[in-house]
Amino acid sequence: MTRYDVRIEHDLIGELEVPAGALFGVQTQRAIKLYPLNGEKPLSAYPELLRGLLRVKRVAAHTNMLTGELDRELGQAIIDAVDQLLEQSPPEYFPVHAFHGGGGISSNMNVNEVIANLANRDAFGKPLGTYSPIHPNDHVNLNNSTSDALSTACHLAVISTWSSLEAALGELIETLDAQALRLQQVLKISRTCLQDAVEISFADMLGGYSSLVKRNRRRLTTDVDALHAVNLGGNIIGRRGDCADAFFERCIAEMNRQMASERFEHTDNLFDSSQNHDKLVRVSAGIDQLSRALLKIAKDFRLMASGPQTGFGEISLPAVQPGSSAMPGKVNPTIAEYLVQCCMQVCGHCYSVQMTQDHGELDYTPWQSIVINNLLDGMTCLESGIRAFSRHCLEGIEPNLERNAANVNSLIPTVMRLKKARGYSYASRIYKETGGELELIRQHLDE
Amino acid sequence: MTRYDVRIEHDLIGELEVPAGALFGVQTQRAIKLYPLNGEKPLSAYPELLRGLLRVKRVAAHTNMLTGELDRELGQAIIDAVDQLLEQSPPEYFPVHAFHGGGGISSNMNVNEVIANLANRDAFGKPLGTYSPIHPNDHVNLNNSTSDALSTACHLAVISTWSSLEAALGELIETLDAQALRLQQVLKISRTCLQDAVEISFADMLGGYSSLVKRNRRRLTTDVDALHAVNLGGNIIGRRGDCADAFFERCIAEMNRQMASERFEHTDNLFDSSQNHDKLVRVSAGIDQLSRALLKIAKDFRLMASGPQTGFGEISLPAVQPGSSAMPGKVNPTIAEYLVQCCMQVCGHCYSVQMTQDHGELDYTPWQSIVINNLLDGMTCLESGIRAFSRHCLEGIEPNLERNAANVNSLIPTVMRLKKARGYSYASRIYKETGGELELIRQHLDE
Amino acid sequence: MTRYDVRIEHDLIGELEVPAGALFGVQTQRAIKLYPLNGEKPLSAYPELLRGLLRVKRVAAHTNMLTGELDRELGQAIIDAVDQLLEQSPPEYFPVHAFHGGGGISSNMNVNEVIANLANRDAFGKPLGTYSPIHPNDHVNLNNSTSDALSTACHLAVISTWSSLEAALGELIETLDAQALRLQQVLKISRTCLQDAVEISFADMLGGYSSLVKRNRRRLTTDVDALHAVNLGGNIIGRRGDCADAFFERCIAEMNRQMASERFEHTDNLFDSSQNHDKLVRVSAGIDQLSRALLKIAKDFRLMASGPQTGFGEISLPAVQPGSSAMPGKVNPTIAEYLVQCCMQVCGHCYSVQMTQDHGELDYTPWQSIVINNLLDGMTCLESGIRAFSRHCLEGIEPNLERNAANVNSLIPTVMRLKKARGYSYASRIYKETGGELELIRQHLDE
Amino acid sequence: MTRYDVRIEHDLIGELEVPAGALFGVQTQRAIKLYPLNGEKPLSAYPELLRGLLRVKRVAAHTNMLTGELDRELGQAIIDAVDQLLEQSPPEYFPVHAFHGGGGISSNMNVNEVIANLANRDAFGKPLGTYSPIHPNDHVNLNNSTSDALSTACHLAVISTWSSLEAALGELIETLDAQALRLQQVLKISRTCLQDAVEISFADMLGGYSSLVKRNRRRLTTDVDALHAVNLGGNIIGRRGDCADAFFERCIAEMNRQMASERFEHTDNLFDSSQNHDKLVRVSAGIDQLSRALLKIAKDFRLMASGPQTGFGEISLPAVQPGSSAMPGKVNPTIAEYLVQCCMQVCGHCYSVQMTQDHGELDYTPWQSIVINNLLDGMTCLESGIRAFSRHCLEGIEPNLERNAANVNSLIPTVMRLKKARGYSYASRIYKETGGELELIRQHLDE
Repeated sequence: MTRYDVRIEHDLIGELEVPAGALFGVQTQRAIKLYPLNGEKPLSAYPELLRGLLRVKRVAAHTNMLTGELDRELGQAIIDAVDQLLEQSPPEYFPVHAFHGGGGISSNMNVNEVIANLANRDAFGKPLGTYSPIHPNDHVNLNNSTSDALSTACHLAVISTWSSLEAALGELIETLDAQALRLQQVLKISRTCLQDAVEISFADMLGGYSSLVKRNRRRLTTDVDALHAVNLGGNIIGRRGDCADAFFERCIAEMNRQMASERFEHTDNLFDSSQNHDKLVRVSAGIDQLSRALLKIAKDFRLMASGPQTGFGEISLPAVQPGSSAMPGKVNPTIAEYLVQCCMQVCGHCYSVQMTQDHGELDYTPWQSIVINNLLDGMTCLESGIRAFSRHCLEGIEPNLERNAANVNSLIPTVMRLKKARGYSYASRIYKETGGELELIRQHLDE
Repeated sequence: MTRYDVRIEHDLIGELEVPAGALFGVQTQRAIKLYPLNGEKPLSAYPELLRGLLRVKRVAAHTNMLTGELDRELGQAIIDAVDQLLEQSPPEYFPVHAFHGGGGISSNMNVNEVIANLANRDAFGKPLGTYSPIHPNDHVNLNNSTSDALSTACHLAVISTWSSLEAALGELIETLDAQALRLQQVLKISRTCLQDAVEISFADMLGGYSSLVKRNRRRLTTDVDALHAVNLGGNIIGRRGDCADAFFERCIAEMNRQMASERFEHTDNLFDSSQNHDKLVRVSAGIDQLSRALLKIAKDFRLMASGPQTGFGEISLPAVQPGSSAMPGKVNPTIAEYLVQCCMQVCGHCYSVQMTQDHGELDYTPWQSIVINNLLDGMTCLESGIRAFSRHCLEGIEPNLERNAANVNSLIPTVMRLKKARGYSYASRIYKETGGELELIRQHLDE
Repeated sequence: MTRYDVRIEHDLIGELEVPAGALFGVQTQRAIKLYPLNGEKPLSAYPELLRGLLRVKRVAAHTNMLTGELDRELGQAIIDAVDQLLEQSPPEYFPVHAFHGGGGISSNMNVNEVIANLANRDAFGKPLGTYSPIHPNDHVNLNNSTSDALSTACHLAVISTWSSLEAALGELIETLDAQALRLQQVLKISRTCLQDAVEISFADMLGGYSSLVKRNRRRLTTDVDALHAVNLGGNIIGRRGDCADAFFERCIAEMNRQMASERFEHTDNLFDSSQNHDKLVRVSAGIDQLSRALLKIAKDFRLMASGPQTGFGEISLPAVQPGSSAMPGKVNPTIAEYLVQCCMQVCGHCYSVQMTQDHGELDYTPWQSIVINNLLDGMTCLESGIRAFSRHCLEGIEPNLERNAANVNSLIPTVMRLKKARGYSYASRIYKETGGELELIRQHLDE
Repeated sequence: MTRYDVRIEHDLIGELEVPAGALFGVQTQRAIKLYPLNGEKPLSAYPELLRGLLRVKRVAAHTNMLTGELDRELGQAIIDAVDQLLEQSPPEYFPVHAFHGGGGISSNMNVNEVIANLANRDAFGKPLGTYSPIHPNDHVNLNNSTSDALSTACHLAVISTWSSLEAALGELIETLDAQALRLQQVLKISRTCLQDAVEISFADMLGGYSSLVKRNRRRLTTDVDALHAVNLGGNIIGRRGDCADAFFERCIAEMNRQMASERFEHTDNLFDSSQNHDKLVRVSAGIDQLSRALLKIAKDFRLMASGPQTGFGEISLPAVQPGSSAMPGKVNPTIAEYLVQCCMQVCGHCYSVQMTQDHGELDYTPWQSIVINNLLDGMTCLESGIRAFSRHCLEGIEPNLERNAANVNSLIPTVMRLKKARGYSYASRIYKETGGELELIRQHLDE
């Protein structure tokens, strides 16, 4: 068999040549031809989504065995094939464009076809493309369809990806808190509207940052938890009748068993789940807000480290790489800027997700691939930025003690001490009478 | 006193003429000159925000009386002035531009000045502009500042505005549920990718809509509830020292007493509250998502009512106004389109809010007016759209029984019945053999 | 006649009470009831749009007179009514919600009805509500409809509003250029990534700002100029047949005559003009980009003025108002912040506009009111921000000569002088050998 | 040499192990470690950007030879190395993360290092990592720096990518125009607000689409053309002094010669070019608007093809793949949906680009990688969608003649004929008197 050998498969549209050695089949092959990649990503580039789909197929197969709808031998062959793929999924198995028309049907069929071919070959010694005894639609897709299988897989993928992003947030929070503790005694000036205000400690400022990140994490945890409500068995548009009652009643228990969880449950309203992907959109909104929060924090560190001589110069960031191809000695806040850019990138991902909601329509919103791809890309990108920032930047910040000490004794903090001692009108008057002369104001403070 | 009479006031910048009869003072007058309206909105156009500020001043005054920092006579005069303004606030009292630089300071000072003038005049018979015995900063602003007073007022304003929007959502949900119940027996076709799919009942579809709206309402309720954590007494940038300890310890209890609530509490981290307005931004993200959900629903109704003869024609919407200046007999889905446009408008408001987060900086983010104005405008606009839609459109929808009956017996639903009876491959084969001829397929179904 | 007196009018929907003294009629009254304002804006709040509609009606009337379709006496009565309204349009004449369903039909009918009533009353002594001899649809709307009349009016409104915004940009550019000239000899440090870089003059920096604003102005001029192509006579969806040929052929010449212009012309493709409002969306994209450019510039000035003691402190901004209700002596960059907030607000407006494009559909996109309202609001708001910034901030900036002089002799600029004299590798080596000690590096420079 | 062999290189930060066989050097290696990919894209994934950078280095080398700053032998070695890389650039040569902090410095240094190593090895037989006689900074980067080299490379990359996207638009326009011509005689109904309106021909509708696409293409051509103004030699922040005068004066002529163009020129204001990337942002705004236009068109085709039996059913799209994993016989408008999703994806890309503008700061905006990556990704993705749509969908559309004929004789078009013959009021009256009964109205038409 050479790389040019082909086999002929057919579907409702007609016949098509499929590479003889391909584990996928005719529908995948059609999608490959219709949607060439041009540098865009294939399904295999979203491993968590792929794992989600495989897990759904495994749950479905086992449930169908339990209810007697699927012959045990066939079911076991499907499960074995899935287990093999969960262990290792070579990219060439799942080459379909990561988004395409029809609500992700080609992704679902790519998975169905690969499982069927693998199971037929390994369990029954059948040549690829046979689809018997195991058929992609009749058996692998039994009691699940693109709509509910993909939706459930998306939920699984986000839950899993979140656990990784959550850990990165945990590391960031720990680093913030550790720096706050370490710098508790170091006073610095605070600013409002970029103008000098009162003195605080680094712990105050960093504690605020930590609080912001924790709140965002808490919100995301809540919204990701809501994804444990899935619509498996809500085939097509949410109608119960399209899936066997016995399947519907047992599939969630089976999912909990296989996932070693107790939290999965059926969603309240299956029609709603087909009409909308807004639970995922909600998570995306949380990711967007987190990104903007981190963008703010990263820019703050750049600003506090601005200089070395003509800027704020309150802290120095670790020098991790030369800062300029043209200016010797220049060191730039590149890691903070990397995080800034990750955040900008993520906001774009979340924007695409957001659009799918208002472009939804009727009983089924077919833009789910845009939702899930961008959400997973965004979460992964944000994690990269957070990890780099915590380890290569935040962990190594050092306050400029001299500068900070001078700052907290400058004009405005001094006036504020006077105001605290004597009231607003008094301090205002002194400020005016002394023409804002720091030394003169200090004398009033000492009185 | 003519309208051109003026009095002279002064502040740190210098002297300024203020209209002799104005209840506001020099700082408000400065803002009026710096930020002419040009058709934009003044503070008075945000009555809930204004009430929020007034309530904060009332809470502060009473707390200051309790702790002994404020003379009882002065405090009572402030409270009486606030009560009078809560009863009635003529727009000319609060003319400052609804957003302006400095984090909303002019809004805060406008309120401080009006209260001081009113209290001095009514309780002590002093001429306007005297600021004695009650001074805007020393007494009305005592232990609160623009930063924490405005932030707390924003929380109050959103809590109050939400109760009104929540009621509108309740009406929408009730109307959806009532129509679902009424049309429970009317079958219709469902669609995926705008292509014919299986039959469902109107109740199924409307139930999904209702579920979506309920979920959005639930999320918003959670996020609005979080606004009961306020930073009153977290003056300027969150430092405890800038406000008397006794004030800080008692002001929340006083707020709960005055608001007849038990839910207000101090926020966890006062620095965080000054650094970020992201609790408000979070509510805005929820409003944005709700808008997109409603936009989808409104467009669905337009689509189902498309026709009358060449469209989907599944339902008719009430004819509330002539539909064309040029086409007699034309009736357009104008109310649904009004809701669509409200949603588009609201998304723009939420967009402005969103930007403030990543443009935040350091210890204090000065874009709070953009946050609150757009959030309140958005919530109000959405309420308008929802009310109009529930009452003038949704309540009067009528299904086209004949069309819906024909639809559910069309090709694809029939094939689906065959598939349900005989499996996917069988139905596929028959579909192919009959060339998709409806009558022939029906025969297989009857076998 | 009391304010509660009514007259009865009717339309295709049925009868309705209209206030007896109202110049508008039944269709306007319906819209008032369907779309209560709730603090949102009525048509009268968009005077340029209203003038645009009035001008279209005037052009149409005169063209219809020329072609003989409209009796001269009727035509003249219409023109006289329009002229009166162009002179003065009391808000109560045009109370319909500024956006509403049906593509702005109620705005068009409000104008048609007021003109008809005014003309019938003033020219023929008829009571309000008569609609004879002049009928809102048969005569005022003759050969124009909501679709083309409103589209053309939008173009007129934007052209007119742009001339005002363009003047504000001109003032900004002049002020930038004047300051550049004045500060040509004042050197300052430049920064990359907020880190010290080489020295430049204030003229270099301000010249870059001026260049940016000019380029944005140039683009907007081009895109606004394209609005001279209008679809008047492209009734309803662009079909020529719905408007008299003679009208179509002469209306543009008449428009040029009345507008004292030579630039108006028919758009290339009338169907396109009905399907899309994307020429307006294009202008909005230009306004959005301009806003973001100005936001950047405004934030730069804030940053350069940060301090007074602990920030960049390169320039001081004029002190126009006290900067804090709690901190005596504080002066904030409030005008720059006002511009920042105007820009954020405008970005939200442009966002709403942007959404209308992808939500367009088929032969006619009914979201034109969202487009025009937000575009006009955005342009006006931006003009406010620009005017305030030029006059109250930019005009009064003063460089801190001492600080700037120190900055340009700091470490990195010095290393750069060494690099210029001796190459990158040499300068790098010296930088390293001296441990970045400024004085030591200076010695190498003097060698 | 095994894959684990390393060589030691050093830079200002210190020593670092570089894989012994790597063509890149220490700074690239640092970036690899700081910014692991995690599924994100490396520089090599943007071939047009890479080619742009290589071309800039080639132009710089030759110009430096012409002015005598660069020894001819060294210069030729650089040029040969570049030519080899332009011919073939294995991905492993350019592994740095496609965005990273510092304004893209690692991309520039990756290119500098690879060219230097390649030239030293091939022309002088030096081992990798020698950097002599050719040094990445002293020679390859001579008279250009990250700032101007990358900016110029971005312009080249977009010009080149646009020519490909422009061709795809050309194909789309041709296909639209060909279909318009073919279907010129086929009448169809038009709709406003999704309600039946007057009859038009398919050519009218498709002509509008074509006009929209052409206008967007025209705008983009203008904005891409403006990218021929480049800032090569505007080193760092636009100051002329940082690059040799002779280089500055000759580099553009050299660029035109090498690119066989006459259009490249220096930008008006070099400081502006360093402060802003807004010429690229402008192109992105045009891409965004084009995407939204195409999204609208793609959704229109879906809607016109909705059915097959219960929707609009005006046209059928070619059946290119089975439409459902669960519904036999279902064919979905997958290609149109692919285009819709491409457009949504592109809007997200453009959103990220847009953010960079308002987050720009001072003399140099370091977010250029976000701009260029997203712009190139967006343009490529849009091209994929357009090509697929033209070839697999638009080319094969077929009108449903029977349905269209029935539609154009339905109620509203008939009333409109009556209106055209007898005026609005007459038609309105008949419509009302007949209760909107089509047959009765037809009789009045025949009178």
